[in-house]
Amino acid sequence: MIKYPNGLPQTKPEKVAIKVKSTSSANRGMGLESRINLSNDFYVEHSVAVITKRPTPINIVKVDYTHGARITDAFFEKQSTTDYNGVYRGRYLDFEAKSSKLKTSFPLNNIYKHQIDHLLRVMHHGGIAFFIIEFTSKNEVYLLDASFIIDCYQKQERKSIPYVDIQKNGHRIIEAFLPPLDYLKVVDTVYFR
Amino acid sequence: MIKYPNGLPQTKPEKVAIKVKSTSSANRGMGLESRINLSNDFYVEHSVAVITKRPTPINIVKVDYTHGARITDAFFEKQSTTDYNGVYRGRYLDFEAKSSKLKTSFPLNNIYKHQIDHLLRVMHHGGIAFFIIEFTSKNEVYLLDASFIIDCYQKQERKSIPYVDIQKNGHRIIEAFLPPLDYLKVVDTVYFR
Repeated sequence: MIKYPNGLPQTKPEKVAIKVKSTSSANRGMGLESRINLSNDFYVEHSVAVITKRPTPINIVKVDYTHGARITDAFFEKQSTTDYNGVYRGRYLDFEAKSSKLKTSFPLNNIYKHQIDHLLRVMHHGGIAFFIIEFTSKNEVYLLDASFIIDCYQKQERKSIPYVDIQKNGHRIIEAFLPPLDYLKVVDTVYFR
Repeated sequence: MIKYPNGLPQTKPEKVAIKVKSTSSANRGMGLESRINLSNDFYVEHSVAVITKRPTPINIVKVDYTHGARITDAFFEKQSTTDYNGVYRGRYLDFEAKSSKLKTSFPLNNIYKHQIDHLLRVMHHGGIAFFIIEFTSKNEVYLLDASFIIDCYQKQERKSIPYVDIQKNGHRIIEAFLPPLDYLKVVDTVYFR
């Protein structure tokens, strides 16, 4: 087993070597989820945090065992929670990531009630809960504390959150080469001041 | 929205009503995973904790979009982490659950290297990491701190952990009606003394 100086096992170095392109522009055009996953790989490899994406739940109808187990009929289920959770600096982290193609607002129908309920519970038990919201047309990504989004969601005066409100209440995550989206740097300033 | 006195949203009451049988013996014969899932449902509904099972990751090969999205070819992937994680009393929790049919020992080939690596990282970042191990023939379930199992795994002097060692180093989880496996009571005594 290859070990880091801190004694932790090293993982997936070959995977990163394949994933990472040679210029920082390589991250451009990569979907939000891919950039978060790549950042999470980076965090694990550099012993920063352990944050993982929950796999998409799938309802399996039929499995063919003729040549090993092969799923021949199944359908997608909705995630009953958020997409990401993990541990950072001793704290539990839980968040959902969403992209918006609109320039002036973020539509609230992007967010589901079960995600709101889940994040409310996470906060109740002392976890850190937030959203990562991307405006694809602007190449801008923001971290927003869950309480702000939940507040907008519960008021439902509008069907979307204006971009200016996200800009005002959110915390910009600067895009870089590696990690492509260093959102934990923002988590540091928002939750560990 | 129905709310608990603590203001948290209530969920899945109908699901529990269906799942729960009328006698406490109803839990007997239920698999370890089912009893943990049912306990986690109970914990969510009673605002005790938010602990969820990660869905089994599936590699999708072909999707038929003729009538909605239907997966027609896919195969199971190995979980790269453990099965369960969540937040309890402000702390991050992460664990793996395993059953053994043997009477005198727990075979270590039940545990994978990636699970060991994952739990080492969780501990490094201040999370609570453990195993829930069941001896089906004895109807006994134990919580074992991850460090004990990792120690046995890394020594590999034997290919299994003797039952007496699990009994000595583990903490018995008493089976009940609801939650069927109140492992957080044991977590309280082991990690929150």
